[in-house]
Amino acid sequence: MTTTTTTTTTTSQDPKDNNDHLVQSADRKHPANLIPELCKKFWHLGWVTGTGGGASIRDDDLVYLAPSGVQKEMMQPSDIYVLSITAQLDPKQRIYLRSPPHYKPSQCTPLFMAAFTKRNARCCIHSHSQWAVLITLLLENAPSNNRLFEINNIEQIKAFGKGYRKQGNLGYHDTLRIPVIENTPFEEDLTESLEEAMEKYPDTYAVLVRRHGLYVWGDTVDKAKAQAESLDYLFQLAVEMKKLGLPWLSDIA
Amino acid sequence: MTTTTTTTTTTSQDPKDNNDHLVQSADRKHPANLIPELCKKFWHLGWVTGTGGGASIRDDDLVYLAPSGVQKEMMQPSDIYVLSITAQLDPKQRIYLRSPPHYKPSQCTPLFMAAFTKRNARCCIHSHSQWAVLITLLLENAPSNNRLFEINNIEQIKAFGKGYRKQGNLGYHDTLRIPVIENTPFEEDLTESLEEAMEKYPDTYAVLVRRHGLYVWGDTVDKAKAQAESLDYLFQLAVEMKKLGLPWLSDIA
Amino acid sequence: MTTTTTTTTTTSQDPKDNNDHLVQSADRKHPANLIPELCKKFWHLGWVTGTGGGASIRDDDLVYLAPSGVQKEMMQPSDIYVLSITAQLDPKQRIYLRSPPHYKPSQCTPLFMAAFTKRNARCCIHSHSQWAVLITLLLENAPSNNRLFEINNIEQIKAFGKGYRKQGNLGYHDTLRIPVIENTPFEEDLTESLEEAMEKYPDTYAVLVRRHGLYVWGDTVDKAKAQAESLDYLFQLAVEMKKLGLPWLSDIA
Amino acid sequence: MTTTTTTTTTTSQDPKDNNDHLVQSADRKHPANLIPELCKKFWHLGWVTGTGGGASIRDDDLVYLAPSGVQKEMMQPSDIYVLSITAQLDPKQRIYLRSPPHYKPSQCTPLFMAAFTKRNARCCIHSHSQWAVLITLLLENAPSNNRLFEINNIEQIKAFGKGYRKQGNLGYHDTLRIPVIENTPFEEDLTESLEEAMEKYPDTYAVLVRRHGLYVWGDTVDKAKAQAESLDYLFQLAVEMKKLGLPWLSDIA
Repeated sequence: MTTTTTTTTTTSQDPKDNNDHLVQSADRKHPANLIPELCKKFWHLGWVTGTGGGASIRDDDLVYLAPSGVQKEMMQPSDIYVLSITAQLDPKQRIYLRSPPHYKPSQCTPLFMAAFTKRNARCCIHSHSQWAVLITLLLENAPSNNRLFEINNIEQIKAFGKGYRKQGNLGYHDTLRIPVIENTPFEEDLTESLEEAMEKYPDTYAVLVRRHGLYVWGDTVDKAKAQAESLDYLFQLAVEMKKLGLPWLSDIA
Repeated sequence: MTTTTTTTTTTSQDPKDNNDHLVQSADRKHPANLIPELCKKFWHLGWVTGTGGGASIRDDDLVYLAPSGVQKEMMQPSDIYVLSITAQLDPKQRIYLRSPPHYKPSQCTPLFMAAFTKRNARCCIHSHSQWAVLITLLLENAPSNNRLFEINNIEQIKAFGKGYRKQGNLGYHDTLRIPVIENTPFEEDLTESLEEAMEKYPDTYAVLVRRHGLYVWGDTVDKAKAQAESLDYLFQLAVEMKKLGLPWLSDIA
Repeated sequence: MTTTTTTTTTTSQDPKDNNDHLVQSADRKHPANLIPELCKKFWHLGWVTGTGGGASIRDDDLVYLAPSGVQKEMMQPSDIYVLSITAQLDPKQRIYLRSPPHYKPSQCTPLFMAAFTKRNARCCIHSHSQWAVLITLLLENAPSNNRLFEINNIEQIKAFGKGYRKQGNLGYHDTLRIPVIENTPFEEDLTESLEEAMEKYPDTYAVLVRRHGLYVWGDTVDKAKAQAESLDYLFQLAVEMKKLGLPWLSDIA
Repeated sequence: MTTTTTTTTTTSQDPKDNNDHLVQSADRKHPANLIPELCKKFWHLGWVTGTGGGASIRDDDLVYLAPSGVQKEMMQPSDIYVLSITAQLDPKQRIYLRSPPHYKPSQCTPLFMAAFTKRNARCCIHSHSQWAVLITLLLENAPSNNRLFEINNIEQIKAFGKGYRKQGNLGYHDTLRIPVIENTPFEEDLTESLEEAMEKYPDTYAVLVRRHGLYVWGDTVDKAKAQAESLDYLFQLAVEMKKLGLPWLSDIA
């Protein structure tokens, strides 16, 4: 097992201000305001316990990220990192346009970037939800290269888009499939297998990480949030179904 | 299976203002203010996850509706649709007096209308509560044309009215019966079977939708909300009873 | 089964103001302010779903009560009833010093009064908590005249006073015993059996009502609330213990 | 079993003001402001039900403590005790620099002090979480002198530091071990066995107390809170795993 070593640099046109204007806006919908608001909600939902999990938003060329190791329900716009997608010539050399003074970049960064660059997502959410973890545990009997959460004939499935560059949403009778990848000791090392899962399941908007949690994204911030909530709903429902002896897949005309 | 095709038109006496005054009021009890407040509560209760579920209020001739696909805990009065009951001459031709600028009408609209026109309800709530979905799953062994959630001898049953045009509430020993209808790929297509269930069970204030959720209404906004909360309480209790091997029906003098 | 018929009268020195000053205070700790605040918390805890449950506070001769059928998380000080304990010469003839304009008195009133007059309580809380209901269901195998929730060797038991007119609290090894009474179709008709349970278990601060919920009181508002929270904690814990096959009583030196 | 008898004295340079300035600060991060804010969160998480549980912060020589028997979600900075670590020459003679007017010191005080003096912690949290209690119940088959909660291969384990005076955090494959000590009728009497557990498991940041709850600490307030949240997450997950027949320890390369 190898650990990716990535160097990070903060660059700024005016080093005096660290480009702080990039995270200062009176608009509630500005990414630097939205990320703390979303993370506060996710903390209450049990997705970002301790300092786990997080969220990132892409706005054109700019990517806004929560830092590593912060309490997600307490985050402020001034805690946000900003980097430029086009400036990432070398994936091992990440250049931050704006960095908060006291933090480190999140190890989730390359995983969020994968959703932005490989799937043109605008928002990616990383959850440590217990329901997501339990689903991966309930799937451990399957071979490690073929673990898949599958559920059909549940109305909430209609919350998911049909897939990358496709119009419309899944239907009630469609089967939602979320692949499970192996966890790694260092979160950055998940990047390769996450990207592989994106290739193998090109239409998925989410990837489960075994005994760890979930990455879920969307074509807009609203869609990423709605898909994240809907997946967590389905995971919790599926765990309850398992306790009650009800199968996840059924054959309804 | 056929999908209902409905055309929608927004009409306005003064096209310049889109009748926005219909959703502008300083009164907290105005339907355009109540619906966002109720939906925020329902989001926290897990009834309107993602963008599922919703609520509608009727005030005399006017019906106020949440739009399709919005995050229910973030809704504003300006997001509300308004239509006139008496203007709905042709059920396939819905005329909106006021429409929000960026949304589509909810597919739940004809289902809400059924509660208003067939049962003279003043408020109808659509929940995707997991407890409601689990109840329908636990009833799947019954034949599809005769699925009924039945529970008795629980105090919370007294929260329900005796039925349409009847005075008073159910008693402790009465059996509460909620019919379950089949889900359909398009929500509008539920209308016919919802109306059939209303005919078959004329006193019910709610209809479960298999693997989908619940429609519940009331003679006032307060009663609709109280009945919705009480049903969710009973559904959750019934799931816990099932886990503990306790029957839903009992014979107590 | 007979139903108690009680007539209620509102009396007022100055009929013009309905003694509204009795529920108007800038002091957060005034009973008319505390009851709505407590009920809001209880709604979030799932104790007063729909319009079920409630709370009452006694301050010297005055008893403050929530009305019947209101949404407990929305209550205002102006919704509160006030009656005088000394003026209740005939228990069937309740005289209200102050009544809210649009409501009916709660059927819980004589039960709250029992806690105030028989046990000198200052606050009594009525919860419909599902955990309380499940405990009564799990005890149904016992004969109806001898149903008792018993648990010992759990730290939270230390939250309970030793009993009526006794100093100090229960210890870790003490067994907490909460009697269960039969439910009745009309809540007022519970009064006699609640008072009997108080006689039979003079040290209890709470009585469970089968398939209904809980009455719990305390020597102060703070103690009533702490005992109510602690009981709900123990009920939920006991349900989880049952699911995991763990006994409620154990023999630890 | 013997009960520790501790005398407490409040000392003050200026007896007129009881050193109230020690708990008065406009800084949200001041311990006297942080403790009420943390306790409010913990109440909502179910860790400090009734008046159980609590939290303490050390800032250099000063230790800030919640009083005994208060409702933790209602606490104010003026309710906080302050004592000096260096002034505690005799562990049986505790000298408070500042005392709130109406309360008693918490019985948890010597346990918090153990974390501060033996492990150089800056914050210690005491939770009555039901998940913590259930874990201790599920471990009762082990001999009482060797009860240990062990879990591995769960991402959230990475939230824990490697141990006392060690750099870095646990890894995904590492086994988190939390010792369980016996409960005692008087909380102060836990001190000796808590300190023994700290000696036997020098790297643990937490100790479970059988049928009671958890003490968890950290090198900073943020780390104590993150470790407390992460432990509660793991306890809840482990209870769910037990219900689903999934083992807490697994062998993953």
